[in-house]
Amino acid sequence: MAKPSTGPLTGFPEWLPHQRMVEQDLTDRIRRRYELHGYVPVETRSVEPLDILTKKGATDKEIYVLRRLHAEDDADSGLGLHFDLTVPFARYVAQHRADLTFPFKRYQIQRVWRGERPQEGRYREFYQCDADVIGMNNLPVWWDVEMTMLMREVLDDLPIPAVAIQVNNRKILEGFYRALGIADYPRTLRIMDKIDKIGTKGVLAELSADGTLTDAQAAGCLDLANISGSGLDVLSRIEALGYTHPLLQEGLSELELILRETASLPAGQVVANLRIARGLDYYTGTVYEGVMSGFEKLGSVCSGGRYDNLASVGKDKLPGIGVSIGLSRILGLLFKQGALTSSRKSPACVLVALATEETRSEARAVAATLRARGIATEVFDRPLKWGDQIKYADAKGIPYVWFPAGGERAEHEVRDLRSRAQAGADPTTWAPDESVLRPVIVRAES
Amino acid sequence: MAKPSTGPLTGFPEWLPHQRMVEQDLTDRIRRRYELHGYVPVETRSVEPLDILTKKGATDKEIYVLRRLHAEDDADSGLGLHFDLTVPFARYVAQHRADLTFPFKRYQIQRVWRGERPQEGRYREFYQCDADVIGMNNLPVWWDVEMTMLMREVLDDLPIPAVAIQVNNRKILEGFYRALGIADYPRTLRIMDKIDKIGTKGVLAELSADGTLTDAQAAGCLDLANISGSGLDVLSRIEALGYTHPLLQEGLSELELILRETASLPAGQVVANLRIARGLDYYTGTVYEGVMSGFEKLGSVCSGGRYDNLASVGKDKLPGIGVSIGLSRILGLLFKQGALTSSRKSPACVLVALATEETRSEARAVAATLRARGIATEVFDRPLKWGDQIKYADAKGIPYVWFPAGGERAEHEVRDLRSRAQAGADPTTWAPDESVLRPVIVRAES
Repeated sequence: MAKPSTGPLTGFPEWLPHQRMVEQDLTDRIRRRYELHGYVPVETRSVEPLDILTKKGATDKEIYVLRRLHAEDDADSGLGLHFDLTVPFARYVAQHRADLTFPFKRYQIQRVWRGERPQEGRYREFYQCDADVIGMNNLPVWWDVEMTMLMREVLDDLPIPAVAIQVNNRKILEGFYRALGIADYPRTLRIMDKIDKIGTKGVLAELSADGTLTDAQAAGCLDLANISGSGLDVLSRIEALGYTHPLLQEGLSELELILRETASLPAGQVVANLRIARGLDYYTGTVYEGVMSGFEKLGSVCSGGRYDNLASVGKDKLPGIGVSIGLSRILGLLFKQGALTSSRKSPACVLVALATEETRSEARAVAATLRARGIATEVFDRPLKWGDQIKYADAKGIPYVWFPAGGERAEHEVRDLRSRAQAGADPTTWAPDESVLRPVIVRAES
Repeated sequence: MAKPSTGPLTGFPEWLPHQRMVEQDLTDRIRRRYELHGYVPVETRSVEPLDILTKKGATDKEIYVLRRLHAEDDADSGLGLHFDLTVPFARYVAQHRADLTFPFKRYQIQRVWRGERPQEGRYREFYQCDADVIGMNNLPVWWDVEMTMLMREVLDDLPIPAVAIQVNNRKILEGFYRALGIADYPRTLRIMDKIDKIGTKGVLAELSADGTLTDAQAAGCLDLANISGSGLDVLSRIEALGYTHPLLQEGLSELELILRETASLPAGQVVANLRIARGLDYYTGTVYEGVMSGFEKLGSVCSGGRYDNLASVGKDKLPGIGVSIGLSRILGLLFKQGALTSSRKSPACVLVALATEETRSEARAVAATLRARGIATEVFDRPLKWGDQIKYADAKGIPYVWFPAGGERAEHEVRDLRSRAQAGADPTTWAPDESVLRPVIVRAES
C-alpha cells in the first residue's frame, strides 16, 4: 500500500496550537466588538448552488465544486463551496426574511474557499470575519459611516500593526468613466483594479487595446486613480479634473460624508484612495480596502463595501453594506515574522504530578478542586521521576507543578516554575498569579 | 436568466440568529470545559488527500471530492472534505510531531461533511466538538477513564436533556468472536453494528448468509450483544457465557477499570452496553456512544473511542483516544421541539433612539459611551416616530431604549421595555439589570 500523503498542502494553512490560541484570541476580540454594536451571529452552510455563486459574475474566483466520491455517474452535486460570506449572507436574508427584523445586522466568522493559485498571503482556504447590515428596500447612507467606524474599532482592538482603511466609491468611478464617454464601465473597472499588479503602463496598454479607449480617456482614468488623501481637499481635486455626471456627484457626496465624519480620527486611519476598485462585481457604492503597515505590497487585509442590488425578493430590494477582516492573511503574514505568539503552549495553569499509581485518585481530586475554581489543570498520566514531569510542564509553558500530599509529603506543595520556589498550598484556597491564570497573546516588538 | 435557487438544501442545516446564539453558547461551554482540562485548541484544514481519507476503510462515509469549476480537464483535485476530525487530527500529529509535546491533548470544534442520505438528525454538513489525546508509542489505559469523565463533565455542563454514555470495548468483541471460532471479525462487527437498525432477525440472517457463521456462532454474538448495565456484574455475565480469549480478557479488564472508576456517578450516567460497535474502522479498544433522554431512537449524540493504530511515524506508533460531541445533531433535535432558545434575538442591551438627523452625533456619542463600558448598544438608523423605534427594539428583544437629551428633553432618559418605566439616566454611570446585560440561553420545560 502506498504511503498516505501526510505533508502540508499549499494554500491550506494550518497553525500550531500556540498559533491557534492567537487566532482564537483575535476571533474572540472581533466577535466581542461586533456584538457590542448589536450585530447578531450568523453562520451559513459552506455550500451554495452553483447558480447562486456564479450569479454575480464572480468568474475569477475559482469556485470548488463538490462531487460525492461514490456518485454513480461521476456527476457534480451542483453545489460549490462559498468563496466569500457576502453572497451566502444575501441569500440567507432573502430566504429567512420573514424571521428577521430590518435593518438586519449580522456578523459571520467562517472559512471560505477559492481555488486560486496560492502565493504569499493568498490561500485556498481561509477565515473571513464579516459584519454586514441589510435593509428592506432602503439603507440610509449613514451606514457607510457606521461601517467605517466599526471596521476602525475592530482593527484598533487587534494586537497587529496599524491598518489604514482606504475608501473609494464605485459611483465616482462609474460616473467619472461615463463623463469621459467610456461605454464599457465593467471592463474599465476590471482593468483599473489591476493597477497595483501591472502598473500604470500595463493599465494604459490594456485600456487602449483594440482601440476601445482613446488615449485621452485612458489618461483621464489614470488621473482619477492617482488621487488620494485623508482631507476633504481630495474632493476638490477630483472636481478640478473638470468632469460632471449625476452618479459622480452622488458618489462624491457619499465619500464626503465619510471623510467629514472620520476627520477627528488620527491621520492616516481613514484615507480616500481613488484607485481602490475591488474585484467583486456586486459593489455599487462605497468600497473599502485596508493595508497593514509594513505589509503594503501584500494586498488588503480587510475589505468591503456597499451592494445595493445583490439580493431582492419579488419587488423588494435588499441593499446592504459590509466589511470583512481577512484574519488568515493577517495571521499568516505575522506568524511568518514571529510577530505574534501565545505566552504558552497550553491553556493549563497547573500540572498535578503523579507520585505513584496508588495515589492517582488523590492527584485527580486535587485537579478537580482546582478546575471547579476555574483554574485549568491537568494530571500527569504516569508516575515518572519528578524531573521528567516538570520537564513536560516546562515544555508546554505550564507555570505551576502541584505535588499532592502523601507519603513523606505532609501537605500539598506547589512549585512556581518561573521562580523555582516551592511552598505549601491548599487546593481549596490557593490561587495562581492572576497574570498567568490564562495564556496571553504576546506581540514581538519589531 | 433563471431565478437562482434560494431555498434550503436538505442535509445542510442553517440556524436563525437566536438559534446560532444558542449554538455559540454551547460551543463556548464545551471549549471552556476542554480548556479547563488542559486541552489545546487545534483546527485542521477542511480537506485531506483522498488516500488519507480512504486509508482506514471508511468506505461508507460518502466523501465529497473537490474539483475546481474552471479546471481545464474536469480533473478532481485529489482532495476531499474530511468526514470526521479524528483522521485529520492523526495526520496533523504525525506531520507536526516535532513541534508537539506528548502526550498531546487537543480539542477541535469544526464542521465535517458526509454525503449520506439526509434524514432526521443526520446531516451532510455538521459540527463536531472533539477532544483527543495522542501518545508517543504508549498511552496508558488510564486515559480511557479520563476521557469518560471528561465527556461526562462536558455533557453535564450543557443545558440539554440527560445523556447516557454507553461504553463497550472492541477487544471484548474481537476476542469473543474469535473464541466463538469466527474468522472474519470486521465483517461480523459491521453486521452487529446494524442491530438497532435491522433488528435481531436481520442481524441473524446477515450473519448466517452463505453459511459464513453457524447458527451457534450467530446466537453467541447475539447473547453478547444483549448484555448491558452499569454495575460490575456485567463483567461476570459476559464471563458466564463461557468463552475465553486473551483479547477478551484484556478488553474486560479495561472495561472494568472504567466501570469501577465511574461507579460513584449517579445511576445511568455511564453504562456498559455490549452492542455498541461504532461504524468507523479505526477503533481498537474502548468505544463510546451517548444517547439523549427522549431521543434514544435517533442515534448517538456523542461518540468516540480508542485508536491505537490510526497513525504512526516510522517505527513510532501514535496511539490515541478521543470523544466527539455531535453538536449539530443535538441542536437540530432540540430546536425542532422548541426546547432551547435565546432570551432575545440580539446581543444589544440598549437601542439609542434617533430624534432628528441633526442630533445623530449626540445619539452616536451616547452609544459609544455605553459600549466603552461593556454595554452592547445600537443606534436606530433614521428618525422615525418613537413608537416605530420602540417596535424595532421590541421585535429584537432589546430591553432598553435610550432617549438622548436635547430639544424639550432636559436630560437623557432610558425606558425599560419590560416595565415600560422611563427615568433620567447618565450614560457614564447608568447600568442595566445584570440579568439582561447579555442574552441568556433558555431551556423550555417539557
